[in-house]
Amino acid sequence: MDAVNRQWLLRSRPIGMVKESDFELREAEIPSPADGEFLVKTSYLAFEPAMRGWMTDQESYIPPVALGEVMRGATVGEVIESNHPDFESGELVSTFDVGWQEYGVIGPGGMAPPIKVPEGVPPTIMLGVLGLTGLTAYFGLLDIGQPVSGDTVLVSGAAGATGSVAAQIAKLKGCRVVGIAGGPEKCAWLTDVAGLAGALDYKLGSVDTQIAESCPDGVNVFFDNVGGAILEAALNHLALNARIVICGGISAYNEATPPPGPSNLLNLAIQRGRMQGFIVTDFLPRFEDAATELAGWVMAGDIVYEEDIQTGFENAPKTFLRLFQGLNLGKQLLNISD
Amino acid sequence: MDAVNRQWLLRSRPIGMVKESDFELREAEIPSPADGEFLVKTSYLAFEPAMRGWMTDQESYIPPVALGEVMRGATVGEVIESNHPDFESGELVSTFDVGWQEYGVIGPGGMAPPIKVPEGVPPTIMLGVLGLTGLTAYFGLLDIGQPVSGDTVLVSGAAGATGSVAAQIAKLKGCRVVGIAGGPEKCAWLTDVAGLAGALDYKLGSVDTQIAESCPDGVNVFFDNVGGAILEAALNHLALNARIVICGGISAYNEATPPPGPSNLLNLAIQRGRMQGFIVTDFLPRFEDAATELAGWVMAGDIVYEEDIQTGFENAPKTFLRLFQGLNLGKQLLNISD
Repeated sequence: MDAVNRQWLLRSRPIGMVKESDFELREAEIPSPADGEFLVKTSYLAFEPAMRGWMTDQESYIPPVALGEVMRGATVGEVIESNHPDFESGELVSTFDVGWQEYGVIGPGGMAPPIKVPEGVPPTIMLGVLGLTGLTAYFGLLDIGQPVSGDTVLVSGAAGATGSVAAQIAKLKGCRVVGIAGGPEKCAWLTDVAGLAGALDYKLGSVDTQIAESCPDGVNVFFDNVGGAILEAALNHLALNARIVICGGISAYNEATPPPGPSNLLNLAIQRGRMQGFIVTDFLPRFEDAATELAGWVMAGDIVYEEDIQTGFENAPKTFLRLFQGLNLGKQLLNISD
Repeated sequence: MDAVNRQWLLRSRPIGMVKESDFELREAEIPSPADGEFLVKTSYLAFEPAMRGWMTDQESYIPPVALGEVMRGATVGEVIESNHPDFESGELVSTFDVGWQEYGVIGPGGMAPPIKVPEGVPPTIMLGVLGLTGLTAYFGLLDIGQPVSGDTVLVSGAAGATGSVAAQIAKLKGCRVVGIAGGPEKCAWLTDVAGLAGALDYKLGSVDTQIAESCPDGVNVFFDNVGGAILEAALNHLALNARIVICGGISAYNEATPPPGPSNLLNLAIQRGRMQGFIVTDFLPRFEDAATELAGWVMAGDIVYEEDIQTGFENAPKTFLRLFQGLNLGKQLLNISD
């Protein structure tokens, strides 16, 4: 065991683009698990755009991370000492209550229950397709988007961890799926590896025109991770009774002043559309069934996924920033095991 | 019978605020009804904000009015000559196929079937509470907004023809209803006559602050006729699982360039909200039942309504403009009968 526990704390609330200096590296004592608790040594940190929102001092679906607190995030690690009857040393768990530190104690009363990594499953997948990321795609697409076989489904942020799973679930449901992503590499992955019907590169000219060309019958379901100009473009091409899933809005997360929204919301009336938001934890009672179904799709090769794995605990803030620089294809992870 | 049929034609497509000069007054021959048709002499023209949209050359839920064509709109008139087996001279009908003219022929193949004004019913009510206006409020509020007893329901354009009916239906369903309108007269009507729990004057300071004060538990249903800044303010005060009914967006109808939309759509995710549009004609099969229910409420005095009745056919464009000047309380009508 190391002598110290390195932690990344939230030092300042970012205004505009999050900076590495908004975090502070500190050394602390390795905590000891009390009765009913266990100690986890972190192997992987996982990063999501939504974490940017937790850094802002604003009421939301979960409380903000306090200044001076360990940055919150999903992790996978190994139980190295346990005073909990259900967890043993050597077991791998995914957790939401350790965050950006090398060691953490899990006990009762955390934000989310720890989940054991099943035997034979690569642990990183518990942070991606089989974790909150995949579940977000699953419930957002199926329960909010309600795609029907034959629908045209448009996904923004389609080469990201959530978007890529949503897109492939839509394909499994018999939909014609078009993804929006940035750059030729991501777009090639969407069509050639994930097997989508089309991929639109938002860096190559008008997204509006590209949607018009690739979705001639309009968009039945738009699964949106981006917001802003891409949401506005999609709203111009709704099919009748279209459903718009508000999963995220990364285009605005690092803006000091929230940018204006789409000017064409009245298209919701003209096309009888529905725009709806959700938070994945609303579906907690169905997590296990959904994860089982997702695991089946992954094992059958029907859902493929990518991981962008950086290394070194000292690189946590830098790795987080990759999300907003559009550098990650698939799930953004940081390997901090030896 | 007059010697000529005066008509208001669409002369030019307005850019920005609609102007009287966008219409042209013409004299034409009084048409003769062919077999299966009947001739109507118009008594009242009805005006709605949505008519502004029909003047724009843009694909929508109905085709635009062509340049040089009689301006489209709902009217009530008297059958004065009939070659139709179901309609007799002397009967009053409400119709969507005569528009802004003193005389019009109704036959098969119009945009909407003519409806006889029932015996003893004031004909103008067929253009308001018991017409498309009231039906829009009915289906928008009940089917799209889905209010539940105890909900806080916020209505924008609440002193308008549609908003005032939506607000009162919400009250009948056991909701606490707050209306937004412009000026003390309209606000007094909302609380003192329509019996709403509160009325917010958007001309008196921040609507955002006023909503926060009047809806301390958040807004469960927002019935929106206005869009723009008022929609953005309402989005800041959504209760969990809120429903936003996109009925109209009058704030943008006369803007040459569509103004930007709300910057806070992500609140739909945080509050698990749903924003949905509709067009009243989607509910055509249920019109008769809904009108019967509305008539019952009106007769019982549970729904009160106002009419702003101007006079003189020559004043049709001027009367239409009153909607965008915020001058009407209740349904905007023009009496053109002798």
